[in-house]
Amino acid sequence: MSSGGLSLVRRAVEAVRRTPLWRKRLVVVTVGVGTLTYACQDNQVLQINDGTGKKKVVIIGTGWAGASFLRNIDTSLYDVHVVSPRNYFTFTPLLPSVTCGTVEARSIVEPIRNMVRKRGGAFRFWEAECYKIDPNNKKIHCRSDNGTNIDGNGEFVVDYDYLIVAVGARPNTFNTPGVVENCHFLKEVEDAQKIRKSVMKCFEKASLPNLTEEEKKKNLHFVIIGGGPTGVEFAAELHDFFNEDLAKLYPDVKKYVNISVIEAGDHILTMFDKRITQFAEDKFKRDGIDLKTNFKVVKVSDKAITMTNAATGEIAVPYGMAVWSTGIGTRPIIMDFMKQVGQANRRVLATDEWLRVHGCDDVYALGDCATITQRKVMKIKNVLGDIYGRYPQVELYLKTNQMKDFHDLLKDSDGNIIKESKELDIEEFKKALARVDSQVKILPATAQVASQQGAYLANCFNRMKYCEENPEGPLRIRGTGHHRFKPFRYRHFGQFAPLGGEQTAAQLPGDWIHVGHSTQWLWYSVYASKQFSWRTRMLVVSDWARRFIFGRDSSSL
Amino acid sequence: MSSGGLSLVRRAVEAVRRTPLWRKRLVVVTVGVGTLTYACQDNQVLQINDGTGKKKVVIIGTGWAGASFLRNIDTSLYDVHVVSPRNYFTFTPLLPSVTCGTVEARSIVEPIRNMVRKRGGAFRFWEAECYKIDPNNKKIHCRSDNGTNIDGNGEFVVDYDYLIVAVGARPNTFNTPGVVENCHFLKEVEDAQKIRKSVMKCFEKASLPNLTEEEKKKNLHFVIIGGGPTGVEFAAELHDFFNEDLAKLYPDVKKYVNISVIEAGDHILTMFDKRITQFAEDKFKRDGIDLKTNFKVVKVSDKAITMTNAATGEIAVPYGMAVWSTGIGTRPIIMDFMKQVGQANRRVLATDEWLRVHGCDDVYALGDCATITQRKVMKIKNVLGDIYGRYPQVELYLKTNQMKDFHDLLKDSDGNIIKESKELDIEEFKKALARVDSQVKILPATAQVASQQGAYLANCFNRMKYCEENPEGPLRIRGTGHHRFKPFRYRHFGQFAPLGGEQTAAQLPGDWIHVGHSTQWLWYSVYASKQFSWRTRMLVVSDWARRFIFGRDSSSL
Repeated sequence: MSSGGLSLVRRAVEAVRRTPLWRKRLVVVTVGVGTLTYACQDNQVLQINDGTGKKKVVIIGTGWAGASFLRNIDTSLYDVHVVSPRNYFTFTPLLPSVTCGTVEARSIVEPIRNMVRKRGGAFRFWEAECYKIDPNNKKIHCRSDNGTNIDGNGEFVVDYDYLIVAVGARPNTFNTPGVVENCHFLKEVEDAQKIRKSVMKCFEKASLPNLTEEEKKKNLHFVIIGGGPTGVEFAAELHDFFNEDLAKLYPDVKKYVNISVIEAGDHILTMFDKRITQFAEDKFKRDGIDLKTNFKVVKVSDKAITMTNAATGEIAVPYGMAVWSTGIGTRPIIMDFMKQVGQANRRVLATDEWLRVHGCDDVYALGDCATITQRKVMKIKNVLGDIYGRYPQVELYLKTNQMKDFHDLLKDSDGNIIKESKELDIEEFKKALARVDSQVKILPATAQVASQQGAYLANCFNRMKYCEENPEGPLRIRGTGHHRFKPFRYRHFGQFAPLGGEQTAAQLPGDWIHVGHSTQWLWYSVYASKQFSWRTRMLVVSDWARRFIFGRDSSSL
Repeated sequence: MSSGGLSLVRRAVEAVRRTPLWRKRLVVVTVGVGTLTYACQDNQVLQINDGTGKKKVVIIGTGWAGASFLRNIDTSLYDVHVVSPRNYFTFTPLLPSVTCGTVEARSIVEPIRNMVRKRGGAFRFWEAECYKIDPNNKKIHCRSDNGTNIDGNGEFVVDYDYLIVAVGARPNTFNTPGVVENCHFLKEVEDAQKIRKSVMKCFEKASLPNLTEEEKKKNLHFVIIGGGPTGVEFAAELHDFFNEDLAKLYPDVKKYVNISVIEAGDHILTMFDKRITQFAEDKFKRDGIDLKTNFKVVKVSDKAITMTNAATGEIAVPYGMAVWSTGIGTRPIIMDFMKQVGQANRRVLATDEWLRVHGCDDVYALGDCATITQRKVMKIKNVLGDIYGRYPQVELYLKTNQMKDFHDLLKDSDGNIIKESKELDIEEFKKALARVDSQVKILPATAQVASQQGAYLANCFNRMKYCEENPEGPLRIRGTGHHRFKPFRYRHFGQFAPLGGEQTAAQLPGDWIHVGHSTQWLWYSVYASKQFSWRTRMLVVSDWARRFIFGRDSSSL
């Protein structure tokens, strides 16, 4: 027998693992977190402090907003705690790729524990669900969803000095009956894995020997409800999966396959430029994807989807698998929180331009769970000088409408100058500003917004002390002096819509529109570069390589 | 916008995908399977024939035995149909690696549909569970487990000319109460995935803030019941996973981790040479793995495992996760089948040396679901000349006992020659043969045996016509002439036992024993070379590379 100890090869590999350049780059100098003090108040309530007297920042959620805040917060200034039911961050834009096995589920997630370790244990993570926020006592109530193999119910309470609410949203079913029971959603990695399994099951089921043509057709009818970017990308991925891989593996049933996209509006991809919408609709038509616009789904049973349309009335369509992707709704914990802070009559949790929750101190909300309610520009009286800084929507409005300055505002919708005079009549200016307000859109519920908000807020926290002495924000409307920070300002870097067949549509800033194969390669590079770590970047790229070489896997796993 | 059509890059990639050498090697010339005839007898019973008049071979199961038969059967001679609840083959020896994320689940499975496609659609596959064999009517009853979103119950009947039963075995709980409810098994890919999730949950659970030391210890107590190769390899993998990855990610709770292996016998790995057993036990002791030999588990509750031992009596040990790996039992479908063919009083389905089920025509059973009952050598009267060919156990016995020829048989257990005379007394010869019979072991339930049986049987089927005219088997005992085929003969190529820390024990033929790092590399090469396809081979090797570079993933996915 050979002797024990590490072999040469093993030692070399260990050395490589320990010292790659990119790892060094990410490793932050270890910060001693002092001795933890656990003070048990009653059976479940615990105060956990690191004993350094630092303010305690608690983050709920490890999605784009939470993870981005975490990456940017200076843990030497704060005692940072994270609570989330998932111990990983998911690169959600690649979820549609996971549904068809183009990318592995594990390749698009980054364990939070890896981040903790890279930051030298500078923050703490609890895998638990926060089910109640108590802003009056500055506490959150958490519950571990790790089953019952534990004495007690796994509940605990965490107190905070600052709370960062980044719990995201849930799928919005608009209370359509049968959706929760019969449809898949596409918000989490687990959803994507379930969809993949379900697609394979549909194909295997349709291949069974004792089925009529009708039953085969039914089993192979894939329905996507919602023509937004997620729904459209999933439809395109599914079509590619079928076209490039499954058609060869299931030759007997391929003629029965049908993919339908149901959209309540006139068009799909309405948030994109019309040229992209048109291209996508044409491409789907060429690909044989059945596009049902102006159809509203009213009921989903285990056998059929019922929808209505002005022309056809109510029709029921049998289906094999359905994916519901029509938008997002508010989570119960947020609804409960809104009641407590006097926002019960709102649909979405409101924050100000600094991401602070209205009606509540020291609680910040970002990402899909909240929305910034910008004050109406109309309220302006004397702060015209601060207008750009304080009201970014004015600049946005001018830009989207291809106006150069305030002067353009004074043109009416047909482009005629309302008043030739260069002098500004305050009444007319008010009218013009009212037009701005009427077109102010809330920020889209995208990864880009959430990620920028997380980074912005972490940056504010990091410079809080400095900015208190040297405020850099606009003038306060009520009160004297300036705000500490500049308000959050979203910078749109563009958006992709992969349409299948290695064609992607891109709408980049500056009204730059492109559709085609080259954009697909731009998509590959952007999505690879935006990965959370070098690890996931390598995994995703090698998954793409595997798919190019071997195709997608068809096992019903 | 760019024009449609395939881009250069895409076309090049498509070309690569279509013509790799190894693909060409595997693609068999397409065999026309004729027009399928579905004849509906009643609501569910169907006869499916390819209309060419070829005999219909139905295989139940896509494990080692079934897949090996499939790979080797000549589909131009038979109309081949496969029924299995899983549409993929699993490379089971790597299951323990999947439990800790060393290898991805999808990397060790090969979809059956890929095989169908590579063979030019030469056989048919149904994803369904066979729940009843009806040998009298030559039919099997199947049920699709694909949910209820289908009109009818998804049941169908397949008739056969030859039936190949390769359904494998199920875990044997010895009717210990609470095992099914509270323990994990390690037979399927899904089991391995569940174990992985469960390990991560245990660590997250132990990291929650409101736990006592005792609860942390309990949650991080991993128990493996059964000291066979699977249990030992899993314990070693888990120790590596903890040691190399998790200890760094969960520094606060690492001191509470405890891995226990409970074995009813005196030693672990009893099927290996004593030197390997000794090395494994010493290594586990050094690694801090708690080895509890001579302990019999009598009950498993959701909180504790109760076991007995002559010295300690009954003790209950709290645990976080338990894996049950004590051996295999007979599946219900096989027990029902045994009743029908007069084997109700046996524990395992019996076949003869040609893998034909005793008491049943045209049904063959192989792999873990069956065992070959070799006739007692004692029954020999006049066929001494055929003894080696007909009774391979004699040769095996001589070999394992390091005897050179029959003459050695006549020594007693102390090595003294029983009788000096070179002439063989028939009574003494009978005594000697009785010693052979007493030591005949049934073949181990391993992938190697199942795979060889599948290849052997397919080979017999391929040469059936030729061998009917030119029999090559031994003389028939009852009846005249020779058997058509040589009996199945197992060739043992050795066995590995990975012991963690990049050390593997190997026991190869010729009594060659080796333990250490070099054997680990031998293990890597053998397991890579034994992969089912080039695809899985590349995937497994790249998974190993990913693990070396980035470590194992710790997300609770």
